[in-house]
Amino acid sequence: MALTFYYAPGACSLASHIALVESGLSFEAVPVALSKGEQRGPQFLAMNPKGRIPLLRTDFGSLTENPAILEYVADLVPEAALKPQNHPAQLAKMRECNAYLSSTVHVAHAHGPRGVRWASEAASLADMKAKVPETMLAAFQLIENQLEQAQGPWMLGQEYSLADMYLYTFSRWLEMDQVDVSLLPRVLSHRAAMESRPAIAAVLAKEGIASLSRGEA
Amino acid sequence: MALTFYYAPGACSLASHIALVESGLSFEAVPVALSKGEQRGPQFLAMNPKGRIPLLRTDFGSLTENPAILEYVADLVPEAALKPQNHPAQLAKMRECNAYLSSTVHVAHAHGPRGVRWASEAASLADMKAKVPETMLAAFQLIENQLEQAQGPWMLGQEYSLADMYLYTFSRWLEMDQVDVSLLPRVLSHRAAMESRPAIAAVLAKEGIASLSRGEA
Repeated sequence: MALTFYYAPGACSLASHIALVESGLSFEAVPVALSKGEQRGPQFLAMNPKGRIPLLRTDFGSLTENPAILEYVADLVPEAALKPQNHPAQLAKMRECNAYLSSTVHVAHAHGPRGVRWASEAASLADMKAKVPETMLAAFQLIENQLEQAQGPWMLGQEYSLADMYLYTFSRWLEMDQVDVSLLPRVLSHRAAMESRPAIAAVLAKEGIASLSRGEA
Repeated sequence: MALTFYYAPGACSLASHIALVESGLSFEAVPVALSKGEQRGPQFLAMNPKGRIPLLRTDFGSLTENPAILEYVADLVPEAALKPQNHPAQLAKMRECNAYLSSTVHVAHAHGPRGVRWASEAASLADMKAKVPETMLAAFQLIENQLEQAQGPWMLGQEYSLADMYLYTFSRWLEMDQVDVSLLPRVLSHRAAMESRPAIAAVLAKEGIASLSRGEA
């Protein structure tokens, strides 16, 4: 299985990038310059008509959408135990978390930089942007409560999984979205726990982005 | 396993409702009156702090988010073959479709009735609402192309799956969102093919909502 992974440094593709490194699979990583619009160029659109990252090229063609790439990678390497096995309830909770991150958290954030997807007037875009700190905080307070119930360090408790990689990707954006992170101590501990893993350090170095924890764990 | 399913007639919960009926599992279905705000009442919030449907109550507690409920139901009854088995590429494409429906299609639609999630001013809400026909059409043109490539009748070609139940749920909303459905012949055929299934007829009757196909298949 030859795998080529298209990503943008620090973007949502980080989640799938982490899963690929945690899996131990060999793959080629290709950065896409979003600021230059490479994701909307003819070469990229031929592989992914959505014009978005992440994109994983496989023997069967293109695969998009973080929740799908994450599980595909985990299923390729069951011995890496990146998702719950033989435990349907934990697996369902992991998928619930991934779906929430994809359809609520990522979408809340996107109303800052990408409001033009859903509105046209400058005043609307400013209005949407102004609400991002509130919607991101509300979404992360729910996650904070889930981390408390799980009794950590991970979203599923003792079991590290794809949900942690995806959560970490968005918790990196809290300061950028002007969320008061002091209200989210368990999210900060989770971020620090993630950054103590060698695979995460390797991905951050590869993408050229910074570690964020300051001794919260 | 005792299962109680909370839904609102014709809402996005329809996807999970169809999966439950297709699975053959026995479950109790409880309607939630969104127009009366029951989903934000203390009883419902105690089960689901998100204040949203669908919600599936199980022996391990609450499960939310359509993509997670769909796969949980499919995994409970593997012999019903609601998702690809022993075919990783098909399974990945099904999850890609479900993630797209959840995070792009549903979100595009929600900017009509639920714009207040992401903006505050009346003018912004009107702006967002006005863009819905365009964003829904763009999202469904991508699905139209995928149906063409799959060579139907289903999203995965010959194999009926959870992706079809979820797609049908949103393709029911196209006319409400003022999309010119004549541009989407394969989506209309898909909708008609779904409505020819006994399980879908049973769910529509249970929810008290109409069949939409007019001989497109």
